[in-house]
Amino acid sequence: MTEAATRRRGRGGGGAARRAERSAVSFETARFIERNIPNFEVLTEEALEIIEHNAETVLEEIGVNFPDNPAALDRWRDAGADVSGERVRIPRGLARKLCATAPSSFTQHARNPARSVEVGGKNLVLAPVYGPPFVRDADGGRRYATMEDFRNFVKLGYMSKWLHHSGGTVCEPTDVAVNKRHLDMLHAHMTLSDKPFMGSVTEPDRARDSVEMAEILFGKDVIQRKTVMTSLININSPMTFDDVMMGALEVYAQSNQACIISPFIVGGAMAPVSVAGTLTQVLAEVLAGIAYSQLCRAGAPVIMGAFVTSIDMNSGAPTFGTPEAAHITYGAGQLARRLGLPFRSAGSFCGSKLPDAQAAYETANSLNMGLLAGVNFMLHACGWLEGGLVSSYEKFVMDADQLGTLHHLAAGVQVDANAQAMDAIREVGPGGHYLGCAHTQANFKSAFWKSDVLDYKPFETWEDEGARDTAQLATERVKKLLADYQQPAMDPAIREALDAYVAEKKAAEPDSFM
Amino acid sequence: MTEAATRRRGRGGGGAARRAERSAVSFETARFIERNIPNFEVLTEEALEIIEHNAETVLEEIGVNFPDNPAALDRWRDAGADVSGERVRIPRGLARKLCATAPSSFTQHARNPARSVEVGGKNLVLAPVYGPPFVRDADGGRRYATMEDFRNFVKLGYMSKWLHHSGGTVCEPTDVAVNKRHLDMLHAHMTLSDKPFMGSVTEPDRARDSVEMAEILFGKDVIQRKTVMTSLININSPMTFDDVMMGALEVYAQSNQACIISPFIVGGAMAPVSVAGTLTQVLAEVLAGIAYSQLCRAGAPVIMGAFVTSIDMNSGAPTFGTPEAAHITYGAGQLARRLGLPFRSAGSFCGSKLPDAQAAYETANSLNMGLLAGVNFMLHACGWLEGGLVSSYEKFVMDADQLGTLHHLAAGVQVDANAQAMDAIREVGPGGHYLGCAHTQANFKSAFWKSDVLDYKPFETWEDEGARDTAQLATERVKKLLADYQQPAMDPAIREALDAYVAEKKAAEPDSFM
Repeated sequence: MTEAATRRRGRGGGGAARRAERSAVSFETARFIERNIPNFEVLTEEALEIIEHNAETVLEEIGVNFPDNPAALDRWRDAGADVSGERVRIPRGLARKLCATAPSSFTQHARNPARSVEVGGKNLVLAPVYGPPFVRDADGGRRYATMEDFRNFVKLGYMSKWLHHSGGTVCEPTDVAVNKRHLDMLHAHMTLSDKPFMGSVTEPDRARDSVEMAEILFGKDVIQRKTVMTSLININSPMTFDDVMMGALEVYAQSNQACIISPFIVGGAMAPVSVAGTLTQVLAEVLAGIAYSQLCRAGAPVIMGAFVTSIDMNSGAPTFGTPEAAHITYGAGQLARRLGLPFRSAGSFCGSKLPDAQAAYETANSLNMGLLAGVNFMLHACGWLEGGLVSSYEKFVMDADQLGTLHHLAAGVQVDANAQAMDAIREVGPGGHYLGCAHTQANFKSAFWKSDVLDYKPFETWEDEGARDTAQLATERVKKLLADYQQPAMDPAIREALDAYVAEKKAAEPDSFM
Repeated sequence: MTEAATRRRGRGGGGAARRAERSAVSFETARFIERNIPNFEVLTEEALEIIEHNAETVLEEIGVNFPDNPAALDRWRDAGADVSGERVRIPRGLARKLCATAPSSFTQHARNPARSVEVGGKNLVLAPVYGPPFVRDADGGRRYATMEDFRNFVKLGYMSKWLHHSGGTVCEPTDVAVNKRHLDMLHAHMTLSDKPFMGSVTEPDRARDSVEMAEILFGKDVIQRKTVMTSLININSPMTFDDVMMGALEVYAQSNQACIISPFIVGGAMAPVSVAGTLTQVLAEVLAGIAYSQLCRAGAPVIMGAFVTSIDMNSGAPTFGTPEAAHITYGAGQLARRLGLPFRSAGSFCGSKLPDAQAAYETANSLNMGLLAGVNFMLHACGWLEGGLVSSYEKFVMDADQLGTLHHLAAGVQVDANAQAMDAIREVGPGGHYLGCAHTQANFKSAFWKSDVLDYKPFETWEDEGARDTAQLATERVKKLLADYQQPAMDPAIREALDAYVAEKKAAEPDSFM
């Protein structure tokens, strides 16, 4: 059975019946994860207090930069910060106080209400890879991503049972002008999927376009009341808040739309080479960034982000799924919970060029760590390859399958009478076999997580079928999913309005590839 | 740099100088892991009490079987159990009371004292794959294992920095008679490595041979005082204690040698299909088995084992690295700590036929879980393939490399002044770069775990070098390690005595391949 479980209501009949049958196909999506297991915590109370104290020292003594952004500097001055040039020094305690107006959790609404997600608390929302300029698959190799690739990844995300969110820039559609591709990307998320999605952040104007398209999709009045986009605002670590990103943040915050405010750190390059030092800088940066979001609009929904990798000191390449990244993620989760904010980190990170064993070791390390660290929003949860340069078709479905293990892990352990299974142990007794017993028959369908990709066949069968490795099995699954894809229904008036908005915007200015 | 770090004392010179140089090669082995991180616990106090209560009910009402073993039944009767036929029913609390004489931790001595290991407490000792009848490598494919393969795996284990233990049946040498192969296997562990090792369990006589060979290696008087072998006693789940395994256990316990007493469970087949039910049976079985070891010799060192996998209900194949196996392992760790006993579980488990992405996902899931579950002795920590049917050369070195991440994870997070790195943050400031700063220069060498197998090169370099996947990189590493291997020094008199013992034993009876 595939995760795109087809529920056909009838068989036989002519072309019309077949079309009706076809339109009745639906794709199951699991509810976002609600953890029934504890978080894993590596920092002691003393270590947390040291890091929190040092982060305030960084903000107070060293400060952060808001270059080319006089309005931001005015906001900081008015809030009581010490502004000198583009440097903002924030008195001890002020940033944390400002962060207090950010909600501890929020709902991101999807156009299909069954697919709305709760971000925060014990929840974990999974979203796909974000940002790669290249794609790779077995047939086409590694190549620049196009809009067709983008649409394919949105379709795969829509059909992935364990993925709750359609994401944002699932790959960069390099065949569309830089100043127009955000329109096509949003149009794809809005029409090819009914899961929640992200807005554009590459220019404040594009954030405004994102809000306007969301107004068409959800209704203009709805947007100020409901959060329907979560967008990714990266901090230019160390401690620099780029005016373009801040401009997009301002647009979203003022429209009540959510942002992930996220240091982007390769440890040893953009932060100290130690875990405690990196956490100090991460906390200082998110305190400043989230405080700034609340200066733009108190109560704006935000997520504390931490994109942190280590570095190979020989080559300077970022490294993924490493123990140091795990320590930082566990620690950042603790800091986020003490701030009372949703937490974003981890993902299907790997440095490998291929969807091979390296990719899988690194990804499994990071996914497991993300679950146990209490991550609430996991961007890049599937499909990431080659340090984020490549969106991999095969790895997308391989990782998306592994995300099922996180759902089952998070469910924790039941100990009711059925789970205790004392009757089964009595029935079977020493030397017996459980496969046929009543308890097994009653429970086996839901007892174990089951992969839709991995191979469990006997060696001889596997060999007869071509001795395929995981990547080859994944190629087959990608093709099947894309062949089975069916677009979710949409009000034709909304579809027309979205089409018209995109056409009008595209006609209004010349293409730019800068 | 390879983990087989060569420390050459000079360059140049003739053949003698080169030979001297060559003999100065040494192989670094990391000390066993001492955890500086908490354990991850999924069971509440209430759940633990229910499982412990139910396990006692199983022992009291259902009981366990000790077939074909009148001496064992006598021991149980004398201890106060209710014996009926081969069934032993153990009054509530008796097994746990008997377990109390087992030590909470013990030292397993290696012939190189620097490589002795502490089993128990916060420690984790890593040992290689155990038991496969087949081997696989890129050049030779999948084939029956031979003694040459066995020796190769012992050499690879000796040269693996993150592996603390030489293991036991690293593969089954099927070209040597069944009744003699234990002699060659022990001889290989004793002479080709200086790490600790395991004894034979396939017949009580072979356990006796193992003890006698250990007496040659360590000295006859030493053995009764020091534990120099840890051997694997599987329970024939559900709740059956095979007389051959129990015979070997008796030999080892009476010689003060350690045993892992371990249910061998494919969930849904040899135990109930639920986590709580499986844990109940695991606990009942280990309570009975460890109690029996203490009846053989109070104070004999033992490890509470739990080999538990889930099952694919379609094919009946065992599945690995699954969330259900993780729950059971986390829970079993909690139960072991409440018993005050060392705990064995987890490993490089996978169902994959190849060292591919499936193998790595499943293995990484299991290795991470094992670390966080508080495992003290991890058998199968590297090299396991195809559900344990195959010892994989490539996966051995791939997994052994990943074991480095467990060491770094377990070290926890430092928060001393150097780790806080405040001077570095001050020096670099907003918009700066950490690569050149004093703190980075002083710390980068030890800051991050570094793989000896995985690829971190730029895409173009990687492509120019042949676009190799992880398995291909591993093939190269296997060849290099085996080419670089050098035997650790040994007292020639001991070597001669071992050779003579094996020759004499082999000559004393005809070959049997049964």
